[in-house]
Amino acid sequence: MEERIRLSILLDIYGELLTEKQRNVLDLYYNQDLSLAEIAEHTSTSRQAVYDIIKRCHMLLVHYEDKLNLMEEKKNIEENKKGIIDFIDSLYSDKNAEVLDKIKNYIMNNI
Amino acid sequence: MEERIRLSILLDIYGELLTEKQRNVLDLYYNQDLSLAEIAEHTSTSRQAVYDIIKRCHMLLVHYEDKLNLMEEKKNIEENKKGIIDFIDSLYSDKNAEVLDKIKNYIMNNI
Repeated sequence: MEERIRLSILLDIYGELLTEKQRNVLDLYYNQDLSLAEIAEHTSTSRQAVYDIIKRCHMLLVHYEDKLNLMEEKKNIEENKKGIIDFIDSLYSDKNAEVLDKIKNYIMNNI
Repeated sequence: MEERIRLSILLDIYGELLTEKQRNVLDLYYNQDLSLAEIAEHTSTSRQAVYDIIKRCHMLLVHYEDKLNLMEEKKNIEENKKGIIDFIDSLYSDKNAEVLDKIKNYIMNNI
């Protein structure tokens, strides 16, 4: 996965553990794709301070994922859901189509 | 939920974000039910230091749950799983019992 996308996902998962200012700077950098100079202007901060926030929070987000593995876990939940749907699809016959449709719909809306 | 049980669950979820020493002290306190004096002796730390670690880490664990809601989320996943199984159970008939058993087994082993 591209590093910028990975950091954007980690920011989404662990952003609440950062301060509002840190979250804002990282959002502008990873999601809005602004340069350090643009972020400095936007947030009335020095370019060096913006750089320090991004560097420190990058380390923090990677640390959180290293310890809690939530990105990995969310990926697993999605894969499990897909696995269940694929398994149900493999069981279809004319006789059971209606009941399997009901189960699939319920699962789609509840995992 | 009793506070001690809640903290024991939070320690299980977020313990990796604490240091090894902090985790050890909290484990002795919340899981092994040792007194402050006993923990102090076990860990060659003063009783006051043990008290400070427990107080600070209690706040940290509650803060993490406040921000990330993982205990709540795990509870929801368990409830959703139970909801899916109950829904499947409500669809049973002589004709579809075999296929529904297969789906239930698959789900039990994959969520």
